[in-house]
Amino acid sequence: MPAVDQQCRSSSSGGIDSGIDSDERSSFEDERRRRLAQLAPGLAHEICTPMQYIGDNARFLAEAAGDLRGILSWYQACLRVLAGKRHPELLEEIAAMERKVDLEHLLAEIPIAIAQSLDGIGRVDALARAFKDFCEAGSEPMAVDVERALSIALAVTQNEWKSRGEFTLEVAEAARIHGPPRDLALGLVEVVLAAAAHCGPPGAAIAVRGTRQGDRIELVFSAANSASSPQGSRSDPCDLAPARRLLASFAASLEARTDGDGWTFHLALPLNGQAGPAAAPARSPGARR
Amino acid sequence: MPAVDQQCRSSSSGGIDSGIDSDERSSFEDERRRRLAQLAPGLAHEICTPMQYIGDNARFLAEAAGDLRGILSWYQACLRVLAGKRHPELLEEIAAMERKVDLEHLLAEIPIAIAQSLDGIGRVDALARAFKDFCEAGSEPMAVDVERALSIALAVTQNEWKSRGEFTLEVAEAARIHGPPRDLALGLVEVVLAAAAHCGPPGAAIAVRGTRQGDRIELVFSAANSASSPQGSRSDPCDLAPARRLLASFAASLEARTDGDGWTFHLALPLNGQAGPAAAPARSPGARR
Repeated sequence: MPAVDQQCRSSSSGGIDSGIDSDERSSFEDERRRRLAQLAPGLAHEICTPMQYIGDNARFLAEAAGDLRGILSWYQACLRVLAGKRHPELLEEIAAMERKVDLEHLLAEIPIAIAQSLDGIGRVDALARAFKDFCEAGSEPMAVDVERALSIALAVTQNEWKSRGEFTLEVAEAARIHGPPRDLALGLVEVVLAAAAHCGPPGAAIAVRGTRQGDRIELVFSAANSASSPQGSRSDPCDLAPARRLLASFAASLEARTDGDGWTFHLALPLNGQAGPAAAPARSPGARR
Repeated sequence: MPAVDQQCRSSSSGGIDSGIDSDERSSFEDERRRRLAQLAPGLAHEICTPMQYIGDNARFLAEAAGDLRGILSWYQACLRVLAGKRHPELLEEIAAMERKVDLEHLLAEIPIAIAQSLDGIGRVDALARAFKDFCEAGSEPMAVDVERALSIALAVTQNEWKSRGEFTLEVAEAARIHGPPRDLALGLVEVVLAAAAHCGPPGAAIAVRGTRQGDRIELVFSAANSASSPQGSRSDPCDLAPARRLLASFAASLEARTDGDGWTFHLALPLNGQAGPAAAPARSPGARR
């Protein structure tokens, strides 16, 4: 049940069980959501921890496989020279042994299997970390990295939009904004889901471009190959009120524009003078409102 | 923030932010839980899929490593015989080459790294599957396997109780009961958290024993080494109302008993005559109420 299709219903009280609206069922559903929200960070943590050493082991195996391959080739070369003239029957035996374990196939497949594993481990690890960060994002205002927050929003919504298209992320400049990380995390999820549902036709790649515009960072979500620059619209393509409410603590403005065809979403986030990777936050990360 | 310590507050409206009880904050929190509940199954799915081929690759590597080790030993034996008398300098060179890549260490470490990875992959895979099943458990009544439901409840709560002790699970007989899987999943989570908080002292291993008692399966949660058989209590050690409410669709009875020291929890689930691994369900799994 992709959330993309449910984007516009996000602020209604209906959920998965919206057909069954007895009080009892909805209290069950509240109970379930409360427990899920409570258990999710621990679960993400339990997944992140072994992924760490699974990744370390895979990197060790990649190196070990290279070393073993080197030794094997060297042994083979020596054997061929030593046995070549005097013991042709031994060379036969070696060849038979290598065929038996299908050495050529093994040596070709091992690096592929390791590379594929490393790729998969990287995905799971990135996803589990993003999920953990999403669950743990706190409500205390602090300096938040915009690109990281956007990566988290894209990761946790991945299953919702990947069948419809893909996202590319280009943020020209590292930027930090100040506010509650939880509100930004959730607000960006809303914007990503809106973009997935309304930027371009299904299957269109969606680009998120971040640029500094004076004292704010502007994120534009649009179909990647869109040539037009939509100017504006009086109505939103879906209910953006939840996203605007969530992003209000960052004094953000969110606009949907259309040229009558696809939509683009423009999210402007004031920087409060806190830009650049080396810039010290104006308030300490733990500062309270 | 272990849920174990919050067990008794599970039915209050407070959550992680219970200190901040403005309407605005609580509506944010509802929004967050709704989104999390909606995104969680997709996330679990995105984690399960690569874990599948990461596991397959690790099993392939385990086998390949054994084959390579065999070939290496064989090459070494041949080389020692061939070079032994005529080319002692070659034997020197081989030994130097093996020292250079630390072959002995490599050959010892490779199987350890693979075994450790397989173990970790198994954990992550089991956890991600349990999480997926927990998120996807439906509200349509059907035949539900009690042991599997309990394994899921233990897996999704693992991070909450593992610092306090451990659970062992012994269900003597495969048993299926009939009702909404979602209610059972959530109800068992409540019982597991109650047991983790109240069976024996912190750190005590907790045993869950399932036995058939006539037309019901009885699950007893108790400190693993407890000798006494607590007889009963007029009050519960924590609020069991949510668990009882959730398990009501299974006509379950849940009792907490104490001998004044530790507590045991007794959960009786009527089988409706659907017991044993080979028994056909009395109603089809998709049957509706």
